[in-house]
Order: sequence, then C-alpha cells, then structure tokens
Amino acid sequence: MKRALLGLTIVMCIGFIQAAPESDSGKPEYTSDNHLLPPKNLREWIFLSSGLGMSYTPGSADHQMFTNVFVPQWAYSEFVKSGKWPDKTIFVVEERGSETKGSINKVGHFQTDLMGYGVEVKDEARFPEKWAYFNFDESSKSAQANPKAACWQCHEDHAAVEHSFVQFYPTLKPVAKKFGTYKQAAENP
Amino acid sequence: MKRALLGLTIVMCIGFIQAAPESDSGKPEYTSDNHLLPPKNLREWIFLSSGLGMSYTPGSADHQMFTNVFVPQWAYSEFVKSGKWPDKTIFVVEERGSETKGSINKVGHFQTDLMGYGVEVKDEARFPEKWAYFNFDESSKSAQANPKAACWQCHEDHAAVEHSFVQFYPTLKPVAKKFGTYKQAAENP
Repeated sequence: MKRALLGLTIVMCIGFIQAAPESDSGKPEYTSDNHLLPPKNLREWIFLSSGLGMSYTPGSADHQMFTNVFVPQWAYSEFVKSGKWPDKTIFVVEERGSETKGSINKVGHFQTDLMGYGVEVKDEARFPEKWAYFNFDESSKSAQANPKAACWQCHEDHAAVEHSFVQFYPTLKPVAKKFGTYKQAAENP
Repeated sequence: MKRALLGLTIVMCIGFIQAAPESDSGKPEYTSDNHLLPPKNLREWIFLSSGLGMSYTPGSADHQMFTNVFVPQWAYSEFVKSGKWPDKTIFVVEERGSETKGSINKVGHFQTDLMGYGVEVKDEARFPEKWAYFNFDESSKSAQANPKAACWQCHEDHAAVEHSFVQFYPTLKPVAKKFGTYKQAAENP
C-alpha cells in the first residue's frame, strides 16, 4: 500500500488539508512571500474526471482513494476554445476516501470524507518553470511551491497537454486533438 | 457481472445514448407528447460525486464503470441554501468505462469513454409522483418516463433526501443534515 500511495502522491501531488480553501477568484493568489493560498468553492468549478486508486508505480492499494480533478470555469472555457491552458490556470485534485458497504450499496466503491488537496498552477511571470505544484497540510494557510524534481518533472515528462494529464480527462482529449495540442506519445507507458 | 449491472441499472437508472444531449436550460424540457429531451452541457454543471462499479445487489463486476453525478448550478445553489431540491431539478448520471493500464498508470482505475446517461427530474406539475426517471438509447432524441416500479420505487425507499441519494454525495450530506432534510435511516443496508 505504501508504494501505491507514494506513487499517487508523486503523480497527483496531493496535499493534506482539512481546512476550507480560502481564495475564490478562480486564479492563483499569494501571500507577500510568494506562498500560494488554497482555492475556495472548487465544487463550483468544472469537473474533469475522477480516478480510484491511481498510481504510476506498481503495487497493491488496499485503501484506495478517489481523486476528483477540477479547473475554474474561466480556464475551462478558454481550453475548450483553444486546446491550451491560459496563464493563471489552477488545477485542484481533491482526494476522498472510498467505501463499498454503506447504505444499500454492496459492490464497487463510493466516495466519502475529504483526505486532502493538491494544487497545480500555471503562472508564467511568477515561476521560472511556468508551472508550480503545492501541498497543504492541516495547519497551513498557504504553501510554498514543491521542488522541481517532484511533481513538476513528472508532469513535464508525461502530461499530454502542457503540464496537464489530459490523457486521463476523456472530455478534454478530443478538444486537444482538434487543436493539435495533444501529445500522443504521452499515452505510451 | 450481469447481476451487478442489473443492480447498477436499477439504482442509477442509466440510459445508453451516444448522441450529445440537446437542452441547455438546466431545467427539463419536453416534446409535445411529454417525452423528456436530454440535457446539454452537463459538464458545466456541478459535480456531486462519482462511484466505481456501484451496485445494490451482490455480485462481481468484472467490467466496472464509473458513474459521475451532476446537477445544474441553479439547483445546486438552491440546495445549498435550503437542503431541498427545487422543482425542475435535473440529475444526470454519466456512465463511463474504466481502465487500469494506460499511459503511465499502473494501478487503480481512470475514466474512459462515455457509456450512457440516466436522467432524473423533479417536476411536480407534470408527474403525479413528482419525480420521474428516463433512459435514452443511441437513436432516441427524447424519452418517456420509466415505469414507477423501476427507478422511482428504489429512490422512494432508499434515498436520504427526497428522491436523491445524498448518502453518496459527501459535500451535500452535511448541508442536508444542517437543514434537517437528511433521513439517517437511509444509511442502513
């Protein structure tokens, strides 16, 4: 399980916060010392897709978590028109527990409590590498960008559209292909 | 697998349509002979939750499908303020295939192609039982309400808030509890 969780963490760059996110502009906001504030009202953003127990490293996942990916409406609208992510795009990966037995459900998995968030932003003027990745723990009100060797490098190497894993977002995949921004090679293992 | 799929069908009332939905008002629209038109732009609606391979009958599901549940923004806003679904609320359950091996993913499941939609509407003036359920197949441009014995009865018997399975929508559950509209007994098997 540890290996699977490690993989999930590397891939999705999930943070663990219990507090409600704090910014609701749909664009990244920072403290005076360049730390990202967590987004707010992300349930009103556009849902891209969800996964269950996804990992890029082999291993069993005995406590699989759901991952729900959201982008703000304004960024989604721009992507649909261009196949590109505008500057100031934010992605949030919401991580939730899963259960099988509950109410009248007997098979499969449904979502339960919030486990954390990971945040990815495109901010070309602020970050030399254009994209940056953040985790939040329970007590943090803001977060410093993660080292490039973690999330950034994996997204650089394997994402189908810029730094986004559009290969796992089935409604955006045809959009990117239409605009010629989809890297087909990202579908290779 | 058949039993699991039967359960899923009864529970989620999934229809199988390949064509794009046709109405974008976020409220139910009908033909002159009282058939529902499929909704449009549901990816811009509010995401409530997703499940993987959920079924209310025991059995193995060797080809599990993801189910993504959406409501229009206007209905979601009303629910957040009242814990109740306003008249003309529409729910859509989007059903998608799942895969494990793809791109760099090795464990767990991610979403793939659209398999179909199920639609639930609350329309008090139009339907004697207030709520109605619809399936669409590939060639249909509209659909007649399903018999009461199928979806309607299951939702009547087991849904936590009116006819909606809020026990499986973790962000709405505390809202309904706050407004006293949550039936705790719906959490029992």
